[in-house]
Amino acid sequence: MNKVGIVGCGITPFTRDDQRIESILLKSAKILFENNSEINKDLIDAVLVSTNNNSKYLSPILSEITGIKPKIAHSIESLCNSGTNSIVSAYSYIASGLADMVLVSGAERYDSPGQVLQWDNSRGEFKHPIFWASIFAKSYKQKYSISDEQLALVSVKNHKHAKENPNALSKKTYSVQEVMDSKKLTDDLKLLDCSRPCTGGASIILASEEMTKKITSMPTWITGIGQRTTSASFTKNSSLNSMESTKLSGQMALKMANKTINDIDVAEIHDAFSVCEPMALESLGFSNNGEGMKMIKETNSTDDFKINPRGGLIGCGHPLGATGIAQTIEISQQLQLDAGKRQVDDPRVGLVHNMSAAATSSTVLILEK
Amino acid sequence: MNKVGIVGCGITPFTRDDQRIESILLKSAKILFENNSEINKDLIDAVLVSTNNNSKYLSPILSEITGIKPKIAHSIESLCNSGTNSIVSAYSYIASGLADMVLVSGAERYDSPGQVLQWDNSRGEFKHPIFWASIFAKSYKQKYSISDEQLALVSVKNHKHAKENPNALSKKTYSVQEVMDSKKLTDDLKLLDCSRPCTGGASIILASEEMTKKITSMPTWITGIGQRTTSASFTKNSSLNSMESTKLSGQMALKMANKTINDIDVAEIHDAFSVCEPMALESLGFSNNGEGMKMIKETNSTDDFKINPRGGLIGCGHPLGATGIAQTIEISQQLQLDAGKRQVDDPRVGLVHNMSAAATSSTVLILEK
Repeated sequence: MNKVGIVGCGITPFTRDDQRIESILLKSAKILFENNSEINKDLIDAVLVSTNNNSKYLSPILSEITGIKPKIAHSIESLCNSGTNSIVSAYSYIASGLADMVLVSGAERYDSPGQVLQWDNSRGEFKHPIFWASIFAKSYKQKYSISDEQLALVSVKNHKHAKENPNALSKKTYSVQEVMDSKKLTDDLKLLDCSRPCTGGASIILASEEMTKKITSMPTWITGIGQRTTSASFTKNSSLNSMESTKLSGQMALKMANKTINDIDVAEIHDAFSVCEPMALESLGFSNNGEGMKMIKETNSTDDFKINPRGGLIGCGHPLGATGIAQTIEISQQLQLDAGKRQVDDPRVGLVHNMSAAATSSTVLILEK
Repeated sequence: MNKVGIVGCGITPFTRDDQRIESILLKSAKILFENNSEINKDLIDAVLVSTNNNSKYLSPILSEITGIKPKIAHSIESLCNSGTNSIVSAYSYIASGLADMVLVSGAERYDSPGQVLQWDNSRGEFKHPIFWASIFAKSYKQKYSISDEQLALVSVKNHKHAKENPNALSKKTYSVQEVMDSKKLTDDLKLLDCSRPCTGGASIILASEEMTKKITSMPTWITGIGQRTTSASFTKNSSLNSMESTKLSGQMALKMANKTINDIDVAEIHDAFSVCEPMALESLGFSNNGEGMKMIKETNSTDDFKINPRGGLIGCGHPLGATGIAQTIEISQQLQLDAGKRQVDDPRVGLVHNMSAAATSSTVLILEK
């Protein structure tokens, strides 16, 4: 298979601002082109927009306002993992030979319609993701005797990481007690256990091996891709304590990259809610079942492996269509040793985990320099 | 590049019915699987949904209700050429090696939000596509001295073809005089000059060369792909008498297939409005500029070359996200000699032309058996 590299990226601050979706798209693309003046827009063959916004024809709109006349132009939606779905689609356009260079731009508004799970009748009245997250939390805590105080570490850690990320929504750090004392939303989740929907954009450019080597002497390569959708409905999940789609995606991505989980030096994990982080780590094989929190605690004080160095969804905020792209940008910047105060010690291999709707769908990417 | 074949298809009747988008998707997929019992759903690696509907997560929903657990699952939107964009994306997943078999399912409701061109401020108050079509019609008629009576032939012919298509919205035929006497919508367009938005679905399965040969002894191959987006806004079009994106897409697709326009035996042309058919024929190189209507008149009475044998958008109706897929299915069935009373004499090479928003974006596909 043809190699595909990452040759540029741009990201907006994540906020609660009321901005037009077109403005958010333009903003991150503009930052990308300012950061990467060596990229010739005339050589961009495809523009893919990742969003849950209801506006139509956003790729031609973004193309027109940025001065690109692409061959391929369309939007992609898959709720919270729209971003990595778009990156994988860009990868396939390049690896198939239909494109040499692809701009992928993700954007969302704080009031995204993707936050409401309209279709899933199995949830009865419960259309907000917090209901599946509560059931996951209750089940996981019971099965592995994990306390709310232990789970709170995910939020403490990710807010601490986010403080070093200038684009993160959260600017504060919190103690375990402060997480415990935050507003109780359900029996098993407090406000600070949850990622917040927000306004934000993230753009990335992927290119063929030849094009990548022309543009940069220090590329990041996408070497592993794993994806799986097991269902749309929460109640079709085979387990309430693990993430089947994440497990299958992780195995597939590692196999493609010819790596094992022990080779991973830095990881972005889809912590839509605090319980998701240990569950995903276990499903990916980073730790044994029930030992995800132990691993989070152990790695929290080191600099040679970090989970969610940019602050995760809990610290950064969660602009649905942009999240998977922002995660991929973080891992790329980590591999480039370009992550500022968030930098992990000399990482060689990174992992991105991005999922939708109670892990009914997952994407895992392996990146290498 | 790896070869990609068409191994199955299913299409619903096009109606004005009030159906849920999930039901429309399921219906065409169900027809596909009933028509092609040899297709093993467990081997479907990707499910792509083509629609302008605002519902989210439709690919996982379709996957769940049809019993597919795909790797890749997402929706694709690019207004009226969402369908062919989805087919090209499926092609790229297969040609890149990420997938062996892909289900592409397009669906739309009669009240699709894709009918309103919200973004294009250059149109002032005119958000309905009929306004760009009227300007195209006025300009084209003036430049080439074409009368309303001459243009009416497009509608007469496509309604006549649609009568032989059991899935078409229109069940009637009309005379030139009846088209002329139909309700005047603008100075330059009457009701029967327009395609009607409708409710409908179309599903197609693409597969790798190896998989295709296992499933069918009479495959259709996608041998040429051309795409171009020149802008999002109508007023950025370089000409009001030709379609730049169609011209570039046509050249690109023919080059990839190593064919000339004279090799084409049957064509589906995106006749959103009557004037689009001669304009597209000219931009594709089927005829000289200004001679599209002459060609339509000449080929109307023969059976060895047909333009829009299924009835085009004017005769079939236009369920936005399904249209490009329905066009591709028609050409595939024509090449398979499986088009019933619409059959063209032994075609070897076919062309699909699908576009969006005043031809600001076009896709051209070349199919061969």
